[in-house]
Amino acid sequence: MRDVGIIGIGQTAVAEHWDRSIEDLAVEAITEARRDAGTDRADALFVGNMLSGELAGQENLATAIADAAALLPIEALKIEAACASGGAALRAAWLAVASGAHDYALVVGVEKMTDHLTDGVTAALATAADADYEAGFGISFVALTALLMRRYMHDHAARREDFAAFSINSHRNAALNPRALYRQPITVADFIASPVVADPINVLDSAGICDGAAALLICPAAEAGRARRTPVRIAASACATDTLGLAERADPLVWQAVAGSARLAYDRAKVGPKDIDLFEVHDAFSIVSVLTLEACGFADRGSALRLAAEGRIALEGDIPICTLGGLKGRGHPVGASGVYQIVEVVQQLRGEAGPAQVKGARVGMAQSVGGSGSVSVTHILRA
Amino acid sequence: MRDVGIIGIGQTAVAEHWDRSIEDLAVEAITEARRDAGTDRADALFVGNMLSGELAGQENLATAIADAAALLPIEALKIEAACASGGAALRAAWLAVASGAHDYALVVGVEKMTDHLTDGVTAALATAADADYEAGFGISFVALTALLMRRYMHDHAARREDFAAFSINSHRNAALNPRALYRQPITVADFIASPVVADPINVLDSAGICDGAAALLICPAAEAGRARRTPVRIAASACATDTLGLAERADPLVWQAVAGSARLAYDRAKVGPKDIDLFEVHDAFSIVSVLTLEACGFADRGSALRLAAEGRIALEGDIPICTLGGLKGRGHPVGASGVYQIVEVVQQLRGEAGPAQVKGARVGMAQSVGGSGSVSVTHILRA
Repeated sequence: MRDVGIIGIGQTAVAEHWDRSIEDLAVEAITEARRDAGTDRADALFVGNMLSGELAGQENLATAIADAAALLPIEALKIEAACASGGAALRAAWLAVASGAHDYALVVGVEKMTDHLTDGVTAALATAADADYEAGFGISFVALTALLMRRYMHDHAARREDFAAFSINSHRNAALNPRALYRQPITVADFIASPVVADPINVLDSAGICDGAAALLICPAAEAGRARRTPVRIAASACATDTLGLAERADPLVWQAVAGSARLAYDRAKVGPKDIDLFEVHDAFSIVSVLTLEACGFADRGSALRLAAEGRIALEGDIPICTLGGLKGRGHPVGASGVYQIVEVVQQLRGEAGPAQVKGARVGMAQSVGGSGSVSVTHILRA
Repeated sequence: MRDVGIIGIGQTAVAEHWDRSIEDLAVEAITEARRDAGTDRADALFVGNMLSGELAGQENLATAIADAAALLPIEALKIEAACASGGAALRAAWLAVASGAHDYALVVGVEKMTDHLTDGVTAALATAADADYEAGFGISFVALTALLMRRYMHDHAARREDFAAFSINSHRNAALNPRALYRQPITVADFIASPVVADPINVLDSAGICDGAAALLICPAAEAGRARRTPVRIAASACATDTLGLAERADPLVWQAVAGSARLAYDRAKVGPKDIDLFEVHDAFSIVSVLTLEACGFADRGSALRLAAEGRIALEGDIPICTLGGLKGRGHPVGASGVYQIVEVVQQLRGEAGPAQVKGARVGMAQSVGGSGSVSVTHILRA
């Protein structure tokens, strides 16, 4: 396998893009990534997206984007792995370049969710859960996650406000990111006062519905060295799965797919949690951050809340997470989020994260999670 | 890149599977492929599917199938390229094995369409077309294809009944395939008498709505040689795209994606149309077969109807197509069809196609087409 590097990044602002189509958003991000790389070369396009069929009436999305971006007759495939689709698209592109099948591959993650009423989006997101045994009984995705949070609170004697530090961290960092959706800092009081969505999860504990696209250009490391921008190397790429339904798990608070994809990535990159300078966590809800940090070896079981309480997840902490706002602060256009994470790790490893810069960052990790932790894609990048 | 071989194949009957879930169908095909290969090894699962979100309320389908097939914590990704999703899933799996990232990869194409009313399925299938400029104005997928057929009839002075030979061929071959949906032979008179769906396309010119799953196990050619079954080598894998909308094309009767993916495949396999012993064509409608045979170099422009009229596409002809019934006769569970095609080419190259056997078949081609020829995936296999 060939080593692979990232030589271009692009992203739209995360927002409610009422006046733009899903293709418009993708093209903007792709165009920025190509300009950033300083090359028009592209042999293939891999699209990460979850809900273009349900929400935009558009399957065949990779072709639609290849056409809109004037990339024809390029190879173009859409990869779907629920909320992990963004990470999965990079993984598929990495396979294509690592194999030698392609030299320059574009990756774009895109989602457009705000054209629909909230009910429709909630129903669409529930397709990430088990259609027959979960969603079919009317449980929404946030309600499933609320079960996990309640169980965690019970097992570890935690209060709702103990989770606030995660959202506060993401909002603080998002305020430093001009592309982020929620740039206002929040306090513990705000968190406690925010309306409940599905008890015990409240509004300020939930990533919001939004639109956005992020893009990458990757190529063999040997060629990346000659690129305009200092390349960032993909040191590891890994994917793992767990049961689709929560009820099937021996212990719902042990996230096997998340742990498994991280373990594979650590092995392949020959690093451990201690070597990770920043970690873009899939913080769709703060309980996800908690279970992720425990599954990936950053905290012992039942102790991730302390990690946040002690400020260790902040930019100046020993394991900064969601450094440019994460899903909570930057926003979570679901199929795009995994690619936004990679864009942000590249910004950090290039030293271009501005006021959100993690000093001396050399090794960054990003992780996409789909369903209730049922699928996970982990990438480790090196400066 | 490593050479890759196919060592196991499996398929469900194509039918209306009212009593089975989409996961049930996938598991049956996967189980048969693993039994056929005589090994339980599997490092990754690639799922080809177009409409599980719209029709089964299930995204995250690759995880769902990995779970149902007891493959956890295997890597699992769903690939979507409209009606070309099956071929695209093999392509993604091929990249993973050719790269060295995985040794044994399972591919399953699956679609379950009959749980819904025809109107719902018709709307879902229209997501393969341009949502904004085609489907948004109410045109269905068959109506788009009807425009192509009418134009072809105009340009080449063809009559509707001239297309009958394609459907007759597919039904004749389907009668020899115990897994096929439509096993009754048809005549020109039947074809002419069948009700119009979208003028000039009639019922017997259209692949029907149905359910099914087909699966493959692939591995490096070096290991395939030690497998229980004689391996079939993947000599070429290629993908190309064309404009999403028909109106954007300079000439709608020249299918650039189909031609492009075939040309790439010929180059990679170092063969030409004359070397192909059988060709599994994406005959969703007979005009698709016509445009495909012309785009892929089997017939000059305007002359593919003659190829059928002269019996050259029959099992005993010089370019047998749809040898086990094709999409028209075997059935077209959309995201599964591309994998069914590969299963059938393997049956032919192993010499196990029974009464449908193409004598002396050594090189077979299969091609998935998505949208109105907007994306195409071509594979060439060698005994």
